[in-house]
Order: sequence, then structure tokens, then C-alpha cells
Amino acid sequence: MLKVNSERLWNSLMEMAKIGATAAGGNTRLALSEEDKLGRELFIQWCMDAGMSIHFDAIGNLFARREGENPDANPIVIGSHLDTQPKGGRFDGIYGVLAGLEVIRILNEENITTEQPLEVVSWTNEEGARFTPAMLGSAVFTKDLDLEKALEISDRDGISIRQSLASIGHVGSRALARTFNAYYEAHIEQGPILEDQGITIGVVTGGQAICWLDIAVSGVAAHAGTTPMKSRVDPMFGVGEMLSSLDSTLCKKFSDGMITVGQLDIPGSSRNTIPALVNFTVDLRNPDDQLLAEMEADVRRQLTDIAAARGLTLRIDRHWLSPATPFDTGCISTVRTAVQELGYSWQHIISGAGHDAINIAKHCPTTMVFIPCAGGISHNESESALPEHVAKGCDVLLNAVLLRIAQRNVA
Amino acid sequence: MLKVNSERLWNSLMEMAKIGATAAGGNTRLALSEEDKLGRELFIQWCMDAGMSIHFDAIGNLFARREGENPDANPIVIGSHLDTQPKGGRFDGIYGVLAGLEVIRILNEENITTEQPLEVVSWTNEEGARFTPAMLGSAVFTKDLDLEKALEISDRDGISIRQSLASIGHVGSRALARTFNAYYEAHIEQGPILEDQGITIGVVTGGQAICWLDIAVSGVAAHAGTTPMKSRVDPMFGVGEMLSSLDSTLCKKFSDGMITVGQLDIPGSSRNTIPALVNFTVDLRNPDDQLLAEMEADVRRQLTDIAAARGLTLRIDRHWLSPATPFDTGCISTVRTAVQELGYSWQHIISGAGHDAINIAKHCPTTMVFIPCAGGISHNESESALPEHVAKGCDVLLNAVLLRIAQRNVA
Repeated sequence: MLKVNSERLWNSLMEMAKIGATAAGGNTRLALSEEDKLGRELFIQWCMDAGMSIHFDAIGNLFARREGENPDANPIVIGSHLDTQPKGGRFDGIYGVLAGLEVIRILNEENITTEQPLEVVSWTNEEGARFTPAMLGSAVFTKDLDLEKALEISDRDGISIRQSLASIGHVGSRALARTFNAYYEAHIEQGPILEDQGITIGVVTGGQAICWLDIAVSGVAAHAGTTPMKSRVDPMFGVGEMLSSLDSTLCKKFSDGMITVGQLDIPGSSRNTIPALVNFTVDLRNPDDQLLAEMEADVRRQLTDIAAARGLTLRIDRHWLSPATPFDTGCISTVRTAVQELGYSWQHIISGAGHDAINIAKHCPTTMVFIPCAGGISHNESESALPEHVAKGCDVLLNAVLLRIAQRNVA
Repeated sequence: MLKVNSERLWNSLMEMAKIGATAAGGNTRLALSEEDKLGRELFIQWCMDAGMSIHFDAIGNLFARREGENPDANPIVIGSHLDTQPKGGRFDGIYGVLAGLEVIRILNEENITTEQPLEVVSWTNEEGARFTPAMLGSAVFTKDLDLEKALEISDRDGISIRQSLASIGHVGSRALARTFNAYYEAHIEQGPILEDQGITIGVVTGGQAICWLDIAVSGVAAHAGTTPMKSRVDPMFGVGEMLSSLDSTLCKKFSDGMITVGQLDIPGSSRNTIPALVNFTVDLRNPDDQLLAEMEADVRRQLTDIAAARGLTLRIDRHWLSPATPFDTGCISTVRTAVQELGYSWQHIISGAGHDAINIAKHCPTTMVFIPCAGGISHNESESALPEHVAKGCDVLLNAVLLRIAQRNVA
């Protein structure tokens, strides 16, 4: 089995991490910033050194292309993103791009030619930290997000994507939504599952379904000192019962589900006033669309019952629903075969976070390869991954792509 | 039994309510504002018409005095405050001041002379809406709050109490902390108890003890989409269990206690992030100091147990503790005897809210008389009270003061 150059891959990651390095060992390269430009330029230089040609599309997605024997064949694309969160880590996104480059470097060293062109991509503004929404470049590529609308999106200082792209000069005419043979993305897990299980490789089967609810619970504002307990219509204790009920029942019933209450707000709150209104959010996730719908129904039923029993007024708005994204079984099987032939420990895993691959999966056969990260921590300067895992993830990526090239979507 | 002039008292209240009237039928006369000055001047005019002399102390507390046969006797003082909340009501505070004036008017009409001087007081800045803290004038009078410090307190526009007092001219040399024979304050209940019970008069036995706690519950911030439920240390659901536990147990155990969670805050919250920290407040009240201490201990025990079971870090800070303020048994008995002799329905009641009487109770024999207000609503333009209740409360005040004068602290 062909393996990658572990030291070269690690050194490339550490060299890239010098750009926008933070004192605590992280990285700040916000999308289309001066640091992002420097990171992109270093990557471009490495790709040109590897004999690749450089192309941009209208939203600044960067494609480095290694030509195939059949230039008209659809390219197999490998990549992720080079931008980071503010005080983000050295691996989130960057690993997927530089792992793609390492695949090309190995093919060059081994004098392996392929029928299909291979491209390594860095998608624009995956993080969404400077420009909202996240995964913007890949959504514009697939035309899920309108190009002109995206170009007008501005950061907090009022600088638009259009202006930022012009200032770094990374705009081109590569067609949006052009056909890919397949898309592969390697990434740190950004969760604790692989580390907890002592497993090296996550064979990613898709992205889970997500439902965001906005809950408003209204009662009657009253004085904390003059209103007897039995006279109160207190939404805060109602919300306490709601949270307690959801916490103790929902994920026992839906074992693959997740529930998070990340925001809670009491408008015009005062320490000695029973609130009139409590707002909170619910984030529900499940790998299965039908089970997510059942989770949502269960939340609605529990909250409705509790509100009714307490004389509270309840409003539930569905803010967002994103269906599950199953990855391509052919692509998944190339990854599974590669990891099995390499003899590394592995398990199937669901992508809990959003990735460009979730967007691209609607466009072409897609999958991902996960490696463990320490403590599951990401979007943080302390994000870290072991050189061994970084190399083995890239070994799997390399061999999966070779299987795809050979059209051996087996096991 | 002597009774007050119901129509005159009501008309005085409605006349005062024209100053700073709001569109929705409420009043805005913020402490020491132009409107407060006009309200004070109208009151002064009425007092002078009733043959009283006008005096101020250094914090602008306004005393209208009806001389007694023995000018050296300590005065019996009746009153409350003329300032209002922004968009407050027509009765909160004003009723106690104008009820005091009505008592004087009746004594004049009936040619009743008294050994003790009688004074009707309007305390400065009871509401605390423009200048913090509330009940400021009475606290300066009793020297619980330092005069010089109080004079330097500024509103949001940077205007100090010293400047505001100078501009309305209501500053004098009446001694702070001079001795009173007794202090009586009539007030709307600001709670629903009397209305719910169909009772006309609350014989107020004191102010309840109050304990304010600041709670901080810390867990581990993590991604809502990549962190399995069993790996989470989620403070939000911990807080849900805490609220649910307190709600379902505390006030069953402490039947006269009250608990309010008025504020809850998640620093840097995000819909799809498990919070690192949840802060919330707890307001505990009980008429009995010992029972309040037991309530606090119970809260601490429950929260500690729940945090420990969930691996959460808990911090509980006591922000404020105000002991119970029992009113004077002699003064209370004059009110009880008066209401019984008048034949009005009555019950003992605890003052849930703060009042100037709570401050003055530390200084001299003190009590209060409560009347119902619609829905228990106060600090609101819709605050209202029935003319019948307004008159009957003043009847009780008049006869209680006459009993005090006669030193008949009976029943």
C-alpha cells in the first residue's frame, strides 16, 4: 500500500501555521483577510512547485489542478478550507487542503498518472467568522447561494466580499457548478468520539439532520416580593421544568439524537421581577430525518403540555431545518476499503458539524475522512492532532482516491 | 367613628395625577424633576391652606406640620412619597401623602387639637427610578445612608441629587434623625392578596426578610453537533434541573416563602454551542429571618447536590441580605383596633415590597395600612384602586392616629 510522507505533511501544516499564528499556539486567518491571502499564496506556491495550474471562480474558491491523461474527464477534487476562526486552530480545514496537496506530491514522486484530472480546492469563507453564513464558497459553487448576493455580504466593518476578493485578487472565471467526478475531504473530527474509542479513522457516512427551534414562553410579570407563589404565572420555572423534562427523556428515547439549549434570554429582566417572557433556543440533531421529525414532535408535545399545565403561553417557531446528508456509498466504500487494506482501526461516523462536503454532497459523489483531535476540541487555539493520525488519515485519503481512479468502489 | 371626606380625598388624588399625566392614564413624576417639583408645590399649597408650616431637611424630605398643644412633644408623622416610576401609577406613594393631608383636613374641620404635633411627610426619591438606591430620602433621614454620599448620586445624565435639589429649591435645615412619636404610612398593597380574598384593609405587621443570591454554573463548552450526549458537561440542563427542583420543593416546605429567578445570562452564547457558563439570580423572601436562612441553606444544598451529580462547577454568592422588619406592636394594634371599630374587613399582611416605612421602622414605632389595588398591579400606568378602598384606608389611618394620640394602643 502506498503511504504518504508523514514528515513533509506535518512540516507543511506547521509552516502554514506560522501565518496568522497566535501567542497561544493557534491561528487567526479570517476569510479574505491579509493573513488568508498570505496562506493562500503559500499554498499556491507549493502547488505550482508540484506542477499544478491555479484557477479561481467568481467567489474566490481556489482550485490547483493536476492534469489527467484525459483532460475532458471530470476531475476528482480533494480539499477543504484555509481560513480559520478568530483564534482558531492549526488543523480545522487546513489539514484537508494540505492532505490533498500531499496526495498530489506522492503521485508525482511515484510517477503515477491518472485518467482523470485531480484538483485540490480551498473553499472561500468556510468558517463564517468574518462573513455570514459559513460554508459560503461551496454554497455559491453549487448555486445554493446566489453569487451576487454572496458578493454583497459585508463584515462588521462594512467591507464586502466583493471588495475583499478584489483586494486579494483571487477572482477568476472557473465555472460554478461544473461537474466533478467525486469530492473527498479529510478533517479532524471536532468531537471526542474517535479519541474516546481509541480509533484512528472515521469513515464518514454523512451529515446529520438539524432542526433549530425558537421557543417563547410567556407568563405574567409581577413583583417578586408581593406576589404569592400560588398567584404567579412564572415562565422561568416553567422553562426550568421544560429543560428538565427534555433532558431526562428525549435522548433516552432517541439514542442517536442530540439536544442543545445554547441561548436563553429574558427581555428587560430584573432580579426582583417575575419575568413576563423567557426566550430560548433548541438545537436538535439526528442522523435520520424521520427520527429528527419525531424528536421535534416530542419537544413540541412536552413543551405544550408543560405550558398548558402552568397557564403559560407558548410559541414555537422552527428557525431552520436541514435534512440529513447521506454521503455517496461508492465514495464511502473506497474509504472503507482503503482503511481496511491499510489495517488501521476505523469506525463509521456521522459528521456532526457543517463542512463544505455537506454542500458538495448535493452536487457530486462525496465523502469525508475523519481523524481524532485532542479532547474533541476545535475552534480553539488549543486544537491539536497527533502527527501519526494526520499521516494515517492522509494515507487513507490517498488510497481511497486511487481506488476511485481505478473505479474500484468495493467492500 | 370619625370618617374622612371620600370625595375630597379622591379629587385631591385626581388633581395631583394631572401633573406628569401619561397618555395611558398613569403618571411620570421622577424624583426631583420639574414634574416632581410641580407635584410638591401643589401639595405645599394644600398644606398651607390647611394652616400647616412647611419644612425641608438636607435631602429634600418635605414635612408639613400642624402644631400641637405641646410644641416640644415628638410629632406623629404620616406620609409616603410623591415621586413616581417612569410611566408609573396614580396611587403608589401619593395615596399615603394625600391620606395624611386628609387626616389633617378632618382634624381641622372637627376642631380637634392634639397634644403632639402632626406632620405629613413626602420622602425624597422613594422610587429609585431616577437616582439609585430606592427609599433614599428616608435612609438619609435615619442616617443609614450618608448625606454627603447621597447628594453626590447622579442620574443617567450626570445630574446629581445636590444639583437637582438646588434647582427645585427644596432644601432645608430640619434635623435628620430627629425623634418621632410614631410613623404611619398608608399604601396600595402592590400585590393581589387583599383583592383575591375580598378584603378591604391589610394590617401590616412588617417587612419580610430578603436574600439575593448570584449563582454561576460552569460546565464545558462544546459543539452542539459533534459532542455526544454522554460526553457533555452541560450547565444549561443542570440549571434546568436546579430550577425544576427548587420550584417543586422549596415553597412546599416553606409555605410563607417566595422564590423568584428573575435574571439568567449565558455569556457569549451561541445557538449551536453547549454553554461553558450559565449565571442566574435567586430572590428569596420570608417574613421570618430564621426560615429565610433555612430557605437559603436548602437552595444551597439542592444546587450543590445537582451540580456534583453532573460534574458541574457551582459558585453561589450572597449578593444581599436584608433582615425582616417587624413593625411596632403598639402601632399595629392602633390600626387593628381602628379597623375593627370601623367594621371593615381586614387581615394581617406582610409588606412584600420596600417602603419608606421599612427604613423608618428602625428609627421609631412604625406601621402601615394597605388597601387593595386592581390585579395587584403597580409600577404601571394601569395601576388602579377603588374610591371606596381609598376612603376606607384613610378612615383607618385617621382613627389609628387618633388612638395613638390618645395613647390607646389596644386590641
